Amino acid sequence: MVAPATLPLMPLPGCCQRPTHWNFGNSALCLFCTAVIARKSDRIAEQIGKAVKQGKRGRRRRKNSVRIKEPIGMLLDGVRALLFDVFGTVVDWRSGVAREAEPFLKRHGAGSAIPTAFADAWRRRYSPAMEEVRSGRRPFTRLDVLHRENLEAVLPEFGIDPASVPASELDELNLAWHRLEPWPDVVTGLARLKARYIIAPLSNGNIVLMLNMAKRSRIPWDAILGAEVVQAYKPAPEAYLRTADVLAMKPDEICLVAAHNGDLAAARACGLRTAFVQRPTEHGVAQTTDLHPDQAWDLVASDFIDLAERLQL
Amino acid sequence: MVAPATLPLMPLPGCCQRPTHWNFGNSALCLFCTAVIARKSDRIAEQIGKAVKQGKRGRRRRKNSVRIKEPIGMLLDGVRALLFDVFGTVVDWRSGVAREAEPFLKRHGAGSAIPTAFADAWRRRYSPAMEEVRSGRRPFTRLDVLHRENLEAVLPEFGIDPASVPASELDELNLAWHRLEPWPDVVTGLARLKARYIIAPLSNGNIVLMLNMAKRSRIPWDAILGAEVVQAYKPAPEAYLRTADVLAMKPDEICLVAAHNGDLAAARACGLRTAFVQRPTEHGVAQTTDLHPDQAWDLVASDFIDLAERLQL
Repeated sequence: MVAPATLPLMPLPGCCQRPTHWNFGNSALCLFCTAVIARKSDRIAEQIGKAVKQGKRGRRRRKNSVRIKEPIGMLLDGVRALLFDVFGTVVDWRSGVAREAEPFLKRHGAGSAIPTAFADAWRRRYSPAMEEVRSGRRPFTRLDVLHRENLEAVLPEFGIDPASVPASELDELNLAWHRLEPWPDVVTGLARLKARYIIAPLSNGNIVLMLNMAKRSRIPWDAILGAEVVQAYKPAPEAYLRTADVLAMKPDEICLVAAHNGDLAAARACGLRTAFVQRPTEHGVAQTTDLHPDQAWDLVASDFIDLAERLQL
Repeated sequence: MVAPATLPLMPLPGCCQRPTHWNFGNSALCLFCTAVIARKSDRIAEQIGKAVKQGKRGRRRRKNSVRIKEPIGMLLDGVRALLFDVFGTVVDWRSGVAREAEPFLKRHGAGSAIPTAFADAWRRRYSPAMEEVRSGRRPFTRLDVLHRENLEAVLPEFGIDPASVPASELDELNLAWHRLEPWPDVVTGLARLKARYIIAPLSNGNIVLMLNMAKRSRIPWDAILGAEVVQAYKPAPEAYLRTADVLAMKPDEICLVAAHNGDLAAARACGLRTAFVQRPTEHGVAQTTDLHPDQAWDLVASDFIDLAERLQL
């Protein structure tokens, strides 16, 4: 955190455009509207950079002056746990599933299929399968089982009869979800966040899926929480509220970190704090959803390192 | 792992006394009876040490010779997860509870009480409270709640009326169980074991209790498993079998590590592998129980570092 930098009035996206900002990392916070982002990648940020350098020089000169209270640290005041959505927020499920599907599709006569299209088709069945549980039509069933059923259901769309594929091969492809890789900022960012907060997934993925994924990529969770622990799938309120109960915390002592506005809205409705992290290529370069925050979430960050910086970690 | 050391025939405790042994760390394995321990602390181990040094020199001279298969690595062949009992095995509950109870007892007119006696008395109510759940007389109730009830029940034994103590103070003392400290070998040993195995608690302690304890002492669990996740208290078979199910493992792919023969016996009855770790002062220096393994467990170790060494980690 550097000293406050007074910037020229400028059109920061989503900002009230008043002239005083705090700069932290490569982003800026408007002191008036408190939730503004400005990335270094645009021209405005260059101006911020200049102002910040001036601020730094100023700070060095005024070394013994009284330190101004840093408002950024109050953004998640009282929060003790950061819980993370995982598919899309922590890991790049689309590329990971496509990578493992490609040789499978080739082996089974569907070599002309686009692997990412296969990943998308498989994933499209994710929410409806969980809805069977959420609606009460089906008892809680862990995601590995739903993924396996969905795999058999999706294969005919690609001209493959699931009965023609050995079960062991389907089981193996199903484990592609256990081997998804984190976005490049995740492990470094989480290591920093872990210094102050309990960090754990709050995912619809089941325990061993999350565990295998974390072990493989050294994701440093403090615990594996989520749907299987509380026997409820997000965005059902029970998924958030029972997790708070397990942690013996009030909902507002927990912040959900997610790349999906819908997940955050459900968490906020339960009283959790919220942090939106942008994952603009979760669905590929032509992604149209969740490119921007659609509510004034408690925090907005471009990735986990940016999130750590915003929290002065 | 060093080259095999041929030792003079000697009375290694529990060993068949044949003359060829493998040395690893500060222990030795008899190639014939495969489960022998010899600690450096006795004179025999000195002889082992000499033989090992000779073996090391021999190995350097025969650098390109064929490496003999290392039988020690087979002791837990096929095991993918090491799950740990926690109270007594990982942490010193008696000293930890006594340390926090001491000022509490003084504040409430029981300064003459022996803090470890208070810890023992509180702990004595642990198993009967869980038995209410195991028997089906009570729905699953997490350990924090049982501990809190047991605290109120035990206070009159020390002349304290629980109604005279503010609830917040009882709540705080109840959290002593969250702040128990690990035995000195635990963090180092687990860090080594984590390199090859999934490591997680399989404790009757609830999730946030295990989580707070681990976070405070940097115990590097891969996940928090145990009674609350599977809604069953050890030694009920469901506690072990449902945990295997959560991990999508066969029971014999899991090894329970515990300082209690009873816990290991229950785990073995469910098909789990077993490792006994000696904690001879869990109940104080006059401890009479669980000083030795009472079955031929798959592994016996003096602490977690020794366990890691036996597993060549």
